[in-house]
Amino acid sequence: MLDFQPPERDIEFLLFSVFKVQERWADIPEFADFSPELVRAVVREGGRLASEVMAPLNQSGDEEGCHWDNGSVRTPAGFKAAFDQLSQGGWLALSGNPEFDGQGMPKLLGCLIEEMFWAANASLYLYGTLTVGATICIDAHGSAEQKALYLPKLYSGQWTGAMALTEAHAGTDLGIMRSKAEPAADGSYRITGTKIFITSGEHDLAENIVHLVLAKLPDAPAGTRGISLFIVPKFLPDEQGNPGERNSLASGSLEHKMGIRGSATSVMNYDGAVGYLIGEANAGLAAMFTMMNYERLSVGLQGLGASELGYQQAVKYARDRLQGRAASGPKQPQQAADPLLVHADVRRMLLTIRTLTEAGRAFAMYVGMQLDLGKYGNDAEAERLSQLLTPVAKAFFTDRGLECAVIAQQVFGGHGFVREWGVEQIVRDVRIGQIYEGTNGIQAADLIGRKVVRDGGNTLELLLERLGPEQLPERYKAAVSDAFERLRAATRHVLERAGDDPDLPGAVATDYLDLVGYTLYAWFWAEMAGVAQGGDLETSKQHSADFYFARVLPRTVGLAAGVCSAGSDVMQMAEDSF
Amino acid sequence: MLDFQPPERDIEFLLFSVFKVQERWADIPEFADFSPELVRAVVREGGRLASEVMAPLNQSGDEEGCHWDNGSVRTPAGFKAAFDQLSQGGWLALSGNPEFDGQGMPKLLGCLIEEMFWAANASLYLYGTLTVGATICIDAHGSAEQKALYLPKLYSGQWTGAMALTEAHAGTDLGIMRSKAEPAADGSYRITGTKIFITSGEHDLAENIVHLVLAKLPDAPAGTRGISLFIVPKFLPDEQGNPGERNSLASGSLEHKMGIRGSATSVMNYDGAVGYLIGEANAGLAAMFTMMNYERLSVGLQGLGASELGYQQAVKYARDRLQGRAASGPKQPQQAADPLLVHADVRRMLLTIRTLTEAGRAFAMYVGMQLDLGKYGNDAEAERLSQLLTPVAKAFFTDRGLECAVIAQQVFGGHGFVREWGVEQIVRDVRIGQIYEGTNGIQAADLIGRKVVRDGGNTLELLLERLGPEQLPERYKAAVSDAFERLRAATRHVLERAGDDPDLPGAVATDYLDLVGYTLYAWFWAEMAGVAQGGDLETSKQHSADFYFARVLPRTVGLAAGVCSAGSDVMQMAEDSF
Repeated sequence: MLDFQPPERDIEFLLFSVFKVQERWADIPEFADFSPELVRAVVREGGRLASEVMAPLNQSGDEEGCHWDNGSVRTPAGFKAAFDQLSQGGWLALSGNPEFDGQGMPKLLGCLIEEMFWAANASLYLYGTLTVGATICIDAHGSAEQKALYLPKLYSGQWTGAMALTEAHAGTDLGIMRSKAEPAADGSYRITGTKIFITSGEHDLAENIVHLVLAKLPDAPAGTRGISLFIVPKFLPDEQGNPGERNSLASGSLEHKMGIRGSATSVMNYDGAVGYLIGEANAGLAAMFTMMNYERLSVGLQGLGASELGYQQAVKYARDRLQGRAASGPKQPQQAADPLLVHADVRRMLLTIRTLTEAGRAFAMYVGMQLDLGKYGNDAEAERLSQLLTPVAKAFFTDRGLECAVIAQQVFGGHGFVREWGVEQIVRDVRIGQIYEGTNGIQAADLIGRKVVRDGGNTLELLLERLGPEQLPERYKAAVSDAFERLRAATRHVLERAGDDPDLPGAVATDYLDLVGYTLYAWFWAEMAGVAQGGDLETSKQHSADFYFARVLPRTVGLAAGVCSAGSDVMQMAEDSF
Repeated sequence: MLDFQPPERDIEFLLFSVFKVQERWADIPEFADFSPELVRAVVREGGRLASEVMAPLNQSGDEEGCHWDNGSVRTPAGFKAAFDQLSQGGWLALSGNPEFDGQGMPKLLGCLIEEMFWAANASLYLYGTLTVGATICIDAHGSAEQKALYLPKLYSGQWTGAMALTEAHAGTDLGIMRSKAEPAADGSYRITGTKIFITSGEHDLAENIVHLVLAKLPDAPAGTRGISLFIVPKFLPDEQGNPGERNSLASGSLEHKMGIRGSATSVMNYDGAVGYLIGEANAGLAAMFTMMNYERLSVGLQGLGASELGYQQAVKYARDRLQGRAASGPKQPQQAADPLLVHADVRRMLLTIRTLTEAGRAFAMYVGMQLDLGKYGNDAEAERLSQLLTPVAKAFFTDRGLECAVIAQQVFGGHGFVREWGVEQIVRDVRIGQIYEGTNGIQAADLIGRKVVRDGGNTLELLLERLGPEQLPERYKAAVSDAFERLRAATRHVLERAGDDPDLPGAVATDYLDLVGYTLYAWFWAEMAGVAQGGDLETSKQHSADFYFARVLPRTVGLAAGVCSAGSDVMQMAEDSF
């Protein structure tokens, strides 16, 4: 029942009216060939794959889950054939390096495609997103031989990727990991250790699985400066680059999870497995972060996708379900009751989801655009902006994703709590987005610590100036301006005190990230309302913007007050008193 | 792993320092015998039952679920023995009518006990709370014979209760239900229809199940004024009042639910089942609401219990889990890392749960006190206050319950998403609280429509005056006073416009209910901080209050702004544009 329809109209509006890619890409030689017709065809085909191939397996994959048998993992029925379409369609190569069979498409476009894949079937797309992440890491840090060997296999989905960071005692704190890498005579390494929560660590969708494993060399420095990154393939490539000898790594068991149950999450045992160093020794964490930054934006898109999926279910139900009468009098007197959509509180729920989702989609594209400008335009400011905004996208999209999924479930009443309709699955599936690839608390600490305090707030100010309220519609200009000033004041408060009070940034980090998110969404709503021209699109964007400014943006007032009233008061309670 | 510890210290503080029951109950003849020693013994024994008998079955009950076989339902292993202890200990009779073997204890005390039962094992306690609800309904509306027959059996848990309202097409909108009741020659009725989502409709814990079923008499008026209430026992009582002939009702299937999987939720088919009218014909909905109002407060307590349970898990994990270093420098340099509890953002999470839970507990007792004063003190104002506050308790406790459960899960990082630790179950279990016994949207509509607008805001004003900020500590007095004024202003906004704009109350109902909840919590925090005397209790309550005022209460600023800026703007978008 979890039908998914590609939000093609909104995508068209964002691409060509809001982001005006037809003009923007003309200035970037690598993108100059991407005509509107080609872009539309990519969106249409990606949408078709999502709605017709991936979405129909979403509920059945959750119901069946994955099967573990003596180290082998079988994915749910249908996943192999669907993954073949995903990989053979070139979707894992979309933004990949053309030198190694990647398609070199803009990240701005990739965000839209990924959001649809996440919406349609998060469990299935996880096998893809880890693969894409591995290609990004290898492309950035691998040797010429490693790139030539692994990238084409990964872009084509013949092989898939996995990242192995977490150990039972070491999650956020990777510095205390214990996995070891011993140098071997042939220049390779022998990796030994146990990693947990390894998404796609073992499965039956591909002929080989390329693990990117963090481990410590003998006599490595303590902490995060002593971590190296290794390519550890399930089957060692032979001289022709085909899967050869089985490497000594195995899935010890599958995790039983709240959601994303079609995604195989393994405990992985590396037992003297052959590994190949990627990048410099002891610089593995930085190399892994190349992958993590991609994954963080991607996981953010999971949150958006869940919101969109939830919205579609809830709207359909609100149209079909007859219950009660409109407060202003019956709207369908010939029926036993009016549809839920006549009720103001139901509309509040739907508009909350919608305004958070559509602004998020624009925000994601904006981040994608900065990544494109940094990569292809040598735009150092854009690079800084993308680093500032990545933790916001990851945490804010997924936090709002849970909020929106819960609201969508609420529209269904009791029918939302039973498995049949599928909306409870959206809630269970999206919940992981707030946790993996760095918990949202870690994203908030990254934002306020590394990206704002350490930066003196300069990149944030750069962002606010680049956006500026000047060109926005008069109707919203003052509200956006006020919101920007509120954010600036909260930022100053933090900057002024962080030096004397090392716990302050952490104490307010989460509220601060939310403040940034809601504030930027206000700009996007004003911008979208101003750009939308004609007919139903114009009025629906304006009505949505009105709702956002009246009902959602006020959250920033409370958040800013919380940030500004707080010192590190959370530290005053004695540990024993908790 | 889902250990539960009775929050005895907080209960002691609330009973004897905040609510001063030793003085309060002396004025109520029915309660005069309840000495502090007796009350403490009840709390201790209830806590023991919760922590030692009910809690150990919480995870196993979820894992196993209920079994349906040709209309029979088997509950999870251990549930029967535990339910026997719950019922034989007299816990279902706690606030029951002493004339029929009830214990006549104050509701204020019952709230504390119920919260512990919910926390320990929500699925198991559901069998109990439905039974208690049935006794309240029968005690209020049954004939003398019905009371004499059913109440002792239900108080003792020999028989259990179920409420059958919802039909597949009729949830919130009961007026369109189709179940029929045909009069029989002997004065009884024959009930025919299918009800869904029937908690405890069929199970193996008791020798008989007393269904309270809503159905329509032939030629009943349309809508909610044509609904009657019937007692429909699974086994018809014989002349000695023992279970006799099997009645023609049966469980058609069990629902597959997101959570509370140890609770058997049936589709119930009534196939000409023998039923006995309770109360007046066509006045069934009002009679059922006697039960619903109890259940609503009780479901609110489910939310509080989940929050407490989540808090306990999260604090223990935050103490034990070593990860990262304190921002101000290592706190346990001899260990590989510091405990999570040194991190400001983790403390923010824990204090958010704690301040919402402890204020909620006080609020629940306040509602219980109004119910006691209304029932035993003939206090009409208290009766009005309890009616005003019941929807707030139901919705606000459960909304915050989900928030707190999600935060507790977040403290665990990835370990929170796997089943092993049990915290993901808390999230799945508490989610239903926002849906059943009237969705939280319905609670919000009840609050703003019936209890505020229709009342001209008088009862709310009565409450704010009764509370008053005058006796609160200076430290918080102004903030509480400001918060009260904010609530008054938002209330005036709604009252002034509701007449011209019938959709306005619905449009802002949910935000308004939240505004009421957070505002009242501020009063309780100020009161508790002022009352706490000496040592760690005093400092921890003050630090908690400081946190609440700095970081949680500011949410009211945004909520009030949202309520006051809104007309019924949610209605302007065309239906087709959703």
